[in-house]
Amino acid sequence: MKILVSILLVFCQSLGFAQTYPSLNLMPVPKALALGNGRFALVPGFTVSVMTEKTDLTLLSATNRMFSTLNRRTGLYFKQQYIDTNSSRESASLVIRTHQRTGMTIGVDESYQLVVGTKQIRLEASTTIGALRGLQTLLQLLDRDNTGFYFPEISIQDAPRFAWRGLMIDVARHFIPAEVIKRNIEAMAAVKMNVLHLHLSDDEGFRVESKRFPLLQEKGSNGQYYTQAEIKEIIVFAQARGIIVVPEFDIPGHTTSWLAGYPELATKPGPYIPGSPYHFDRSKPFDLMQVMQTVQNTAKPTFQPTKESVYAFLDQFFGEMANLFTGPYVHIGADENNGLTWKQDSLVSAFMRENHFNTPGEMQAYFVNKVCGILAKYGKKTIGWNELFTKTLPKDVIVQVWSPMSPPNIVGQILEQGNPVILSKGIYLDHFFPAYIHYNLQFPSEEILGGEAAQWTEIADAENIETRIWPRMAAVAERFWSPKTVRQVQDMYRRLFIISDELAESGLMHQANYDRMVRRFADGYNVKATKELLDVLTPVKGYKRLFGNWSLPESYVYPNAPMVRAADIAMVDPEDKWTFRNLVADYLLTKNASSVKAIREQLTIWSVCYQQLKPLFDSSPLAKEIEPHAKNLSALSQSCLEAMDIYQSGKQPGNQWMADQQTLMKTAARSVGDVELSVLPELNALISHQLTPLPESYSLF
Amino acid sequence: MKILVSILLVFCQSLGFAQTYPSLNLMPVPKALALGNGRFALVPGFTVSVMTEKTDLTLLSATNRMFSTLNRRTGLYFKQQYIDTNSSRESASLVIRTHQRTGMTIGVDESYQLVVGTKQIRLEASTTIGALRGLQTLLQLLDRDNTGFYFPEISIQDAPRFAWRGLMIDVARHFIPAEVIKRNIEAMAAVKMNVLHLHLSDDEGFRVESKRFPLLQEKGSNGQYYTQAEIKEIIVFAQARGIIVVPEFDIPGHTTSWLAGYPELATKPGPYIPGSPYHFDRSKPFDLMQVMQTVQNTAKPTFQPTKESVYAFLDQFFGEMANLFTGPYVHIGADENNGLTWKQDSLVSAFMRENHFNTPGEMQAYFVNKVCGILAKYGKKTIGWNELFTKTLPKDVIVQVWSPMSPPNIVGQILEQGNPVILSKGIYLDHFFPAYIHYNLQFPSEEILGGEAAQWTEIADAENIETRIWPRMAAVAERFWSPKTVRQVQDMYRRLFIISDELAESGLMHQANYDRMVRRFADGYNVKATKELLDVLTPVKGYKRLFGNWSLPESYVYPNAPMVRAADIAMVDPEDKWTFRNLVADYLLTKNASSVKAIREQLTIWSVCYQQLKPLFDSSPLAKEIEPHAKNLSALSQSCLEAMDIYQSGKQPGNQWMADQQTLMKTAARSVGDVELSVLPELNALISHQLTPLPESYSLF
Repeated sequence: MKILVSILLVFCQSLGFAQTYPSLNLMPVPKALALGNGRFALVPGFTVSVMTEKTDLTLLSATNRMFSTLNRRTGLYFKQQYIDTNSSRESASLVIRTHQRTGMTIGVDESYQLVVGTKQIRLEASTTIGALRGLQTLLQLLDRDNTGFYFPEISIQDAPRFAWRGLMIDVARHFIPAEVIKRNIEAMAAVKMNVLHLHLSDDEGFRVESKRFPLLQEKGSNGQYYTQAEIKEIIVFAQARGIIVVPEFDIPGHTTSWLAGYPELATKPGPYIPGSPYHFDRSKPFDLMQVMQTVQNTAKPTFQPTKESVYAFLDQFFGEMANLFTGPYVHIGADENNGLTWKQDSLVSAFMRENHFNTPGEMQAYFVNKVCGILAKYGKKTIGWNELFTKTLPKDVIVQVWSPMSPPNIVGQILEQGNPVILSKGIYLDHFFPAYIHYNLQFPSEEILGGEAAQWTEIADAENIETRIWPRMAAVAERFWSPKTVRQVQDMYRRLFIISDELAESGLMHQANYDRMVRRFADGYNVKATKELLDVLTPVKGYKRLFGNWSLPESYVYPNAPMVRAADIAMVDPEDKWTFRNLVADYLLTKNASSVKAIREQLTIWSVCYQQLKPLFDSSPLAKEIEPHAKNLSALSQSCLEAMDIYQSGKQPGNQWMADQQTLMKTAARSVGDVELSVLPELNALISHQLTPLPESYSLF
Repeated sequence: MKILVSILLVFCQSLGFAQTYPSLNLMPVPKALALGNGRFALVPGFTVSVMTEKTDLTLLSATNRMFSTLNRRTGLYFKQQYIDTNSSRESASLVIRTHQRTGMTIGVDESYQLVVGTKQIRLEASTTIGALRGLQTLLQLLDRDNTGFYFPEISIQDAPRFAWRGLMIDVARHFIPAEVIKRNIEAMAAVKMNVLHLHLSDDEGFRVESKRFPLLQEKGSNGQYYTQAEIKEIIVFAQARGIIVVPEFDIPGHTTSWLAGYPELATKPGPYIPGSPYHFDRSKPFDLMQVMQTVQNTAKPTFQPTKESVYAFLDQFFGEMANLFTGPYVHIGADENNGLTWKQDSLVSAFMRENHFNTPGEMQAYFVNKVCGILAKYGKKTIGWNELFTKTLPKDVIVQVWSPMSPPNIVGQILEQGNPVILSKGIYLDHFFPAYIHYNLQFPSEEILGGEAAQWTEIADAENIETRIWPRMAAVAERFWSPKTVRQVQDMYRRLFIISDELAESGLMHQANYDRMVRRFADGYNVKATKELLDVLTPVKGYKRLFGNWSLPESYVYPNAPMVRAADIAMVDPEDKWTFRNLVADYLLTKNASSVKAIREQLTIWSVCYQQLKPLFDSSPLAKEIEPHAKNLSALSQSCLEAMDIYQSGKQPGNQWMADQQTLMKTAARSVGDVELSVLPELNALISHQLTPLPESYSLF
């Protein structure tokens, strides 16, 4: 092994960091690598050996899963059946060696070295977790040509940029069943993430079984919650993949679902029914200002922060949960409490005066500090959203920065005070931004604990959530793991869609559920044409749907609200858009004949889609709302075909023709049915014979 | 309610049994129905009420699931959030009423009445289980036109033909994880099945955690088994859908996996390693007779039937399992014990002489009767495969008839002796027969308990098992439930593929996993063309693959053996074959222009598929083996286009041309790569201008 390590070091010294290699499909890109010219050919006699001091069941299971996937991808029917401690041989095709059996903790050594030689592959890591990361890299290295399947000769030395690489899933607004959570965990592991943060309670639902306070789930969940057995299963499943689970119980606001069963925790007697605290007057035409004012001026259901009985309840509750959730962190939310409910309450007001609290923020600091004390008693570290950050916050509380309204230097302020920071600002997946927007994020400091993408579920459910999170999450995971100099958007997208297929192949349902939703949308009619249209639609960005019109029925946050509109189905950052953009860019730059042909074929398909789908629009109310997009796409595709004819014949389009196209383009740019035509910039490029760069940011409203 | 029931009775009196209605997509077809002219239109204000004497959580959950599916299919955003006891109102859009809260037991009243009026829908059943069946019927009635979603006005009175309507899944040869089992349960419920029989142990694997005898799973499963928590979950999940779980522990043969941990149960000391007991000499050319003789002459690992310690072990083991599996039945297998191992053992031989047992069959009868006694002690009824049927078998033991070699009148013999019968002979889904073969099955008696389809998994795994079972299972489920006069194959297939889409829409993965496997097979190359080809391939029938050649590596029964060949992917009874057959039939009968056009389009696609896929065949060993099929399909499609030209111009093809086609057809009929071209009869029909009926049966070898 010593010789191999020496070679590795020599290789690595000759390298700059963070180059990307067009022949490789790794995501995230490793810290350093050196590519050789040879290859390790896979054959049925391929064997695997795990060499550890103590039996490491986590590593053995992960190795068997990797082996199984490799076997399936290659169809080689490996002769070795199973990898266990008895299979330890230095002569195995793949030798995995670790020096320390460890579970996943934040800050554990996740580095590994992977050396693929032509005769043997060696994966070495200090810890179990490092080896798990390396196994994923090995799987991503698999390649094939007409001689068969192989790994390229390569030396990789890898370690993460940030210790905390998380995904938050809101399971309160729409419940996300355990099996969907598990699929997300599997995919997270594939891109070397290590924290799953579950937003388990909110106004709309309480999603964990409490044996101590059963009315939490009985009155707060409409029957949709995780049993404690399921929670245990999720935690074990995640641990086996080097991922910790962080539970969030959002308090003192966002608590209507708790109050349904235990109204005595609130300032007012209730009764409370799980649901959004906001009530908009939908009889009037939509007015954004009106909506914003309603949001700001609503006195929302909130815990009573002065009663000792409330803290006694929380003590018992967190005692139970601290036992169930075995990890070291508990997230207490503490966001978006506007303080109105407290101001209106005479007991709370009196208490504030007595204690010289001038603002609800000081009252909340009192609440937060008491809860931190409870959690500390149970050996847990507290995390909260950035609203919980105050001058008096204990130094060990982790602050998760999210709010777009927070000051630009908030991260610096928190770090200066000594609190650890997790960054989520700029990484809200439910903003429906393309992957490159999040990928381009510059982290304000290398001193933060790490980052966390957030997927809220007001308008996502168990069926479409994978299409919302993936594959964009993989691009963000690269931002968390890879050196900050890895920033080529073009190459990121190339790899992103390869990884996306690999995730689907391993069981993630983002593609399968998309297909399923498309078929349901087409409802027995022309599925192919329906898919061609939906493939290039994308949901409106930011909060344009959630707060931007009355298109969502009042019941949108109910767990049973079906997410079946085009806006729920359309991919957030569709692959077809990027394929088409690349073709258009190539055509404009090189006039490459194959690009011309491919573009013309695509435009021809789009040009008839309106006509093909007319019967569907005429019979399905759900399809009807996107009819204008089909009409515009077909018309613009026809224009583009004309434009290509004109430019290719060496002429320029006439002024009137151009003016007509601009009018058409403006019509097409209107969002209808809460979706947009994602390929407008590219269609415009074909008409104007010039491709303009995509926006560097998008607005939230 | 009285008035509605009276109307229903009048409707039903005017009806013969078992008609099918082209406008309805029900599967299984109900016992009796009367269709009106009106409709019940679905609107967001649609409400549901459950009226029961005692709170019926099973019915409430099932109703909420139905409501949720309805909401998703229609996208109507129903205003009612959730159905609970508080929602009980006679004025609801849908009123569900039962008279008795019951769990699922064999023989429970599963009948129901469903009356869809223009203003209200009423579902009434004696028991919870009847109501669950009726909810599935209601969902299948959903229809849509340009006015929106609706239920047709209808009265249905329904009850099953047989009490036992089962599916057996072998989870021993390839392990099938709990989530896959749950998806199958959900699909079974949709077609009114009520028994899931799990074949939990066999030579190749022991798949349940035993706390009493942990070496069973530790040495017998390669880590692939259900924890007791998972078993409990499966049982609860099934119960909630009106399905009982029957565990099978196959003894005294088929027990290598038990013996790996507990060799003292066997006649010989071992050691034992889980795996097939057969060892074929693969160095010689394949010879079916040789294989059959090996199978017959192998002395296989078998329990020692004379030691009291073996019965003491089984007593403790079944004591634990009787507790875990809460249902009333335990299946003990008892099949395929050829007695050679016992004959070779001096202790067993001595015991047989002492007890005047002339055959191993009598020895096994002794064993079976003792085990029945143990199970009776734990309150369980015994089931076994037909080999356990002897003159001395206790009358309450249920006999599951399976063997193609069993005498034709075996069912009569068993019934005569007074033992209940479950029929599986002729319903082996792993024989790869088209659905109509099983659908045409004539049951030998109406007095049997019922039927059970069987899916063995020597060549099926977690990924493709849903494509093996479904949608064919739905046709068999109709045979189990509907009156025996319901037999129109054409209409069965029409409904089968509609149900198939509905099952996919509800979460079954038979379509999604097929797509996933096709994408993996194409490995980044032309997925569309690959799918066109695989869509019309079908696995060779019977045991032609399992015992018909050496194409399966020795390791095929290992849990890690990947099922990724074309033969593992291709659908057993592909929809495209039936679509094409219908077109061809219509063309030959009516010369309908739209059929001509559709056939020509399909033939044109097939005619280029060989050329399109050549690069894939040249680079992928997995694809290479089906290259001849692509070549033949393309050539024959070209011939068919020529034939259509000839016949349409009023001419007849020349003799030489015809002879050439017959040669080509013969070549194409050879099975290559363990798959066949499913559309050969239809291509032949286009060439010969005559469609011949499909075979009424297929051979197993």
